[in-house]
Amino acid sequence: MILKESPTVTFIGAGNLATQLALCLHKRDIKIIQVFSRTKEAASQLALKIGALPCSKLSEITSEADIYIFALKDTVLEEVASKMPHTNGLWVHTSGSMPMNLFAPYKESYGVLYPLQTFSKTKEVDFSLIPFFLEGSNKKTLDGIQKMANILSSKSYFLDSEKRKRLHLSAVFACNFTNHLYSIAGEIIRETGLPFSVLLPLIQETAAKVQKLSPLEAQTGPAVRYDQNIINKQIEMLKDHPEFQEIYRLLSQSIFHFQKR
Amino acid sequence: MILKESPTVTFIGAGNLATQLALCLHKRDIKIIQVFSRTKEAASQLALKIGALPCSKLSEITSEADIYIFALKDTVLEEVASKMPHTNGLWVHTSGSMPMNLFAPYKESYGVLYPLQTFSKTKEVDFSLIPFFLEGSNKKTLDGIQKMANILSSKSYFLDSEKRKRLHLSAVFACNFTNHLYSIAGEIIRETGLPFSVLLPLIQETAAKVQKLSPLEAQTGPAVRYDQNIINKQIEMLKDHPEFQEIYRLLSQSIFHFQKR
Repeated sequence: MILKESPTVTFIGAGNLATQLALCLHKRDIKIIQVFSRTKEAASQLALKIGALPCSKLSEITSEADIYIFALKDTVLEEVASKMPHTNGLWVHTSGSMPMNLFAPYKESYGVLYPLQTFSKTKEVDFSLIPFFLEGSNKKTLDGIQKMANILSSKSYFLDSEKRKRLHLSAVFACNFTNHLYSIAGEIIRETGLPFSVLLPLIQETAAKVQKLSPLEAQTGPAVRYDQNIINKQIEMLKDHPEFQEIYRLLSQSIFHFQKR
Repeated sequence: MILKESPTVTFIGAGNLATQLALCLHKRDIKIIQVFSRTKEAASQLALKIGALPCSKLSEITSEADIYIFALKDTVLEEVASKMPHTNGLWVHTSGSMPMNLFAPYKESYGVLYPLQTFSKTKEVDFSLIPFFLEGSNKKTLDGIQKMANILSSKSYFLDSEKRKRLHLSAVFACNFTNHLYSIAGEIIRETGLPFSVLLPLIQETAAKVQKLSPLEAQTGPAVRYDQNIINKQIEMLKDHPEFQEIYRLLSQSIFHFQKR
């Protein structure tokens, strides 16, 4: 099927990503027909905001929509797909690490619409600069998915499932692991009596720097020259946190290896 | 000595931090008398920008300035201090990890003015929001250093050398190690053929999130619930990078330990 300029959408899922995507599409005058969630309240809450109908049974999903966006946890995606009623509209999921082909047993027109970003329910997201990674079961479907992506963002890329998995893994380092380093920094600073907030300008600038320099060029700190004297003293300061010591050691070595290459 | 409202300054050092501090003070109408650097060109380059006199011999440093800011690498700080001529004005260094007392053998009025930020020569810095951490050899000196800090920023804290070292260590995690995770993410993404720049909105948002949420609340990803299935698959994907595998394993475990507490 060829997707219309203004396709109608049904959301399978009402979590952080579904909420942010639905709000954005609603703002851009895209009609959202239904919102499905197993939790009736979650479905109603989102549906109300965007003039859609809530439903909490998969059997209630109608065949009207042009595109069904599965914004679900990876762990339930396959099961929900297997229980979906027949629809004409195409199916896409939004997961970084799940293969496109999980839809294959149930559907001909399907694909992936993966936005590379971290979402929370409370913080509104501007999708226009977020890159979307697209995959489709055939050319026509991919064209349709691209139309959808273009409504949301100015940046989209075609990417197969294998490469998308690798992209997702790189995001685990750039986002999940980075955030954990913020947690550790907060833990270390707590022992000085200072608030975590004193670190915020540094965190902000560290992220801002790589918008202009490559991370290799932006790298600073004692590990760059592997200053054994400071490194040993800092490891000693972490003696009450053997886990942090291990992380410190490993990351310092890795920084040094990168610099030498 | 009590520092005047508009103290005069001499810079010992002409690197990234000296440059940024000097430019900022110059903008705020603070007179900078001399810039010292062992590299004549570096001293001249900075001095020219701020209407100061360059010098490349410590013996040429005059006693005129109210405050001498030692913005030098940790490794040379002590040696330079030991070779400084006598001055009346107070001495401060800008290092996170060096003790204040390294000045004690040479001077009565000395202290520390440590801005918590990452600096590069090319990227101009707005000091007004950067927290400064201050220490002084006595009350009067500390008052003087605080005056200086207030000219630069609206945020300053008194912090002794031991706590400053700990703060600096926490910054190694929040900045140096975080930047290295960006490098690793870039390395992983390179194998997909995508440019590093697709990660930039994610990096930006990850830093922005902790400006509102605590990093513990902001934490997402497979390690939060220690999803062994995804974790093993992702470790397998890193089989050509044993160092990244080790970092992945260690940070995932640490995230999980934090969540359980």
